[in-house]
Amino acid sequence: MRNRIIVQKYGGTSIGDVEKLKLIAKKISETKEKGFYPVVVVSAMGKTTDELVSMSKEVTFLKKPPDLREKDILLSTGELVSSTLLAISIKSLDKKVISLSGSQAGIITDDIHGSARISDINTARIMNEIKNDNIIIIAGFQGINIDGDITTLGRGGSDTTAVAIAAALKAEFCEIYTDVEGIFTTDPRIVHNARKLDKINYEDMLEMAVLGAKMHPRSIELASIYNVPVYVAGTFSNKKGTLITKGDEMENNKTVTGIAIDKKVSKITIKKIKNLPGTAASILKPLSEKSISIDVIVQNTPYDGFIDFSFSLSEDDLDKAFDILMNESSLEFDEIIKGKGFAKISLVGTGMQNAPGYATDMFIALGKEKINIEMITTSEIRITCLINENHVNSAVKSLHSAFELDKE
Amino acid sequence: MRNRIIVQKYGGTSIGDVEKLKLIAKKISETKEKGFYPVVVVSAMGKTTDELVSMSKEVTFLKKPPDLREKDILLSTGELVSSTLLAISIKSLDKKVISLSGSQAGIITDDIHGSARISDINTARIMNEIKNDNIIIIAGFQGINIDGDITTLGRGGSDTTAVAIAAALKAEFCEIYTDVEGIFTTDPRIVHNARKLDKINYEDMLEMAVLGAKMHPRSIELASIYNVPVYVAGTFSNKKGTLITKGDEMENNKTVTGIAIDKKVSKITIKKIKNLPGTAASILKPLSEKSISIDVIVQNTPYDGFIDFSFSLSEDDLDKAFDILMNESSLEFDEIIKGKGFAKISLVGTGMQNAPGYATDMFIALGKEKINIEMITTSEIRITCLINENHVNSAVKSLHSAFELDKE
Repeated sequence: MRNRIIVQKYGGTSIGDVEKLKLIAKKISETKEKGFYPVVVVSAMGKTTDELVSMSKEVTFLKKPPDLREKDILLSTGELVSSTLLAISIKSLDKKVISLSGSQAGIITDDIHGSARISDINTARIMNEIKNDNIIIIAGFQGINIDGDITTLGRGGSDTTAVAIAAALKAEFCEIYTDVEGIFTTDPRIVHNARKLDKINYEDMLEMAVLGAKMHPRSIELASIYNVPVYVAGTFSNKKGTLITKGDEMENNKTVTGIAIDKKVSKITIKKIKNLPGTAASILKPLSEKSISIDVIVQNTPYDGFIDFSFSLSEDDLDKAFDILMNESSLEFDEIIKGKGFAKISLVGTGMQNAPGYATDMFIALGKEKINIEMITTSEIRITCLINENHVNSAVKSLHSAFELDKE
Repeated sequence: MRNRIIVQKYGGTSIGDVEKLKLIAKKISETKEKGFYPVVVVSAMGKTTDELVSMSKEVTFLKKPPDLREKDILLSTGELVSSTLLAISIKSLDKKVISLSGSQAGIITDDIHGSARISDINTARIMNEIKNDNIIIIAGFQGINIDGDITTLGRGGSDTTAVAIAAALKAEFCEIYTDVEGIFTTDPRIVHNARKLDKINYEDMLEMAVLGAKMHPRSIELASIYNVPVYVAGTFSNKKGTLITKGDEMENNKTVTGIAIDKKVSKITIKKIKNLPGTAASILKPLSEKSISIDVIVQNTPYDGFIDFSFSLSEDDLDKAFDILMNESSLEFDEIIKGKGFAKISLVGTGMQNAPGYATDMFIALGKEKINIEMITTSEIRITCLINENHVNSAVKSLHSAFELDKE
């Protein structure tokens, strides 16, 4: 399939100021000159969205949360500004170009303001502008619900817009330009011989999503469902980036793809709670009601009809979660222990599912470094250990070397 | 007619920061509590529009002017930000409120980007929101053309939006809140006993439009056509403002309403040009082709088949106009003289049309102050003199006193 449509997405730092925006304008023009049809998705410039969010809080009385419908229209202006400025810049290079808002680009969403999901894309306008030979600049992160109100897509919104547009247009590639040069075996700031991957499959990328590229799992999931080849590369770099694509079943010998790191993790342990049907639910329900997300959950083997129940969560939610559980009269337990300063370190690789022994090798490597493991959780393609945050660097280095990730 | 709909317009300085915006939110809520249906039109906050305009220039290559379609979408975001923030603020006071973009408010315009004219207003959505008991906040200065592209209305745009909405809704009043307290007999910074008018008719207001209130003539013209009562008052003042309304024919005794001042005027005189049919046109055509606006034109009585031809224009255009005329080979003349540092001072009053002698009294008053008159032009309700800018203050004071404008 060669329709020569390329979707490109530029993030906020790529267009953080006028000079960068003009560089992007040239880059897009060059893509057009090479005979492609660029359909570009942009985020808001620099810190615009953060500034708008804080303004929306400042104008309310009695510290009430801002109305979500109004806030969505407010936030959507950030991408309207960047998309029109980029179009103005490209136009001054004597190229045919048009900016489209999310609504004009036909992005239909549900009506969950602040975290809307794309339900459909009506590509008629985009296809028409491609026929008119226009470069198209689409305001990312936004859509319109069936009532005609503007919605925003929440975290990772512009990546999601780009992948969804690429899927709808059956584009050849969805190129994500960002401030890192691609997907690495692990964080290159920690492990200096971390290797940039030429290629990674959707499943591994989903697990690695917290790393450098910072692509939101949601956009990768969408790419996976619609089989959109995603190319992640540095905006102002000439180096080759990483292609995220369908895994090649015939070449399943590469087992560990990379090491994902997630810092600022905290932990709560409830000691000696009765092991009854529904115990876990009775612990987690009051938390989920207050929108607190729980991550790894570990429950030990019962002793005398009691269990210890531990889970990890974001440091930001720790105190709130602790207070909720302490005040939950329906729970009977010995004590609750809270702790912070942990990190999750994950061995990721689709290939691991068919090959045993990786967990063992991981624990051996960490043991050699005398690193205590607080919690363990595994999926078919991932082994995650919760460790003390202070040990992250030595842990990653030892694992990177033990699994020879610096080698092709 | 008592439909209790009140259109209120707040300018950029009225919502220049968060604290002011919150004061406005309270003011609007109070209007609602009094049993009115407030339909509010807002400008962009503070200097937002200027900042967006300069960004649009900075991103172009080779100093090309920004594409007008894109620039209009860009500029329209300023009013989207202020309207949604205001709605968020009002909502946090537990009032029902909704913001509408120009497009959602049904404002249809022609497709002259940057200076679009309103062609129609579809009030269905607004009326529906009024029925839902919502306070309505409309983004001023913008509309949508029949292709669905956002347009902006150019100078005085938000005033025009407010008056047009008031006309379409048959609102009881269109209230314009601004940084002055109303319409004065002349500039109170010059004449300390300048009097605030309780009432002024559309015709006089049109001529006075350059004064303090800075309402654009265009919005006053629209108010006049649709007979919309416009009330101009200070945003944060409790003092009574000025009502702009239809003149009362029966009370035509007040003759001079006020004195309008226009500074930064320059003058060009072409000496000894042949007096042929079309001479004036041949002078003005090359200027209008370059979008230079001419104001007062004076042509003296021919002598030996020649005339001297003078006109006033904005100081900003003086050098450009001079160069154009010097290089216009079709014109034959003795010399061109350019001069700046002039001001226009105008006696305004609908009543003057039926009463002779005002011009004479004006010239006598200026003569007493030994002020030379460079040019004179009159309409039925206005007498304008071009004088040296240095004499403006003494001229205005003497006229204000001669025509007893400080007295009711």
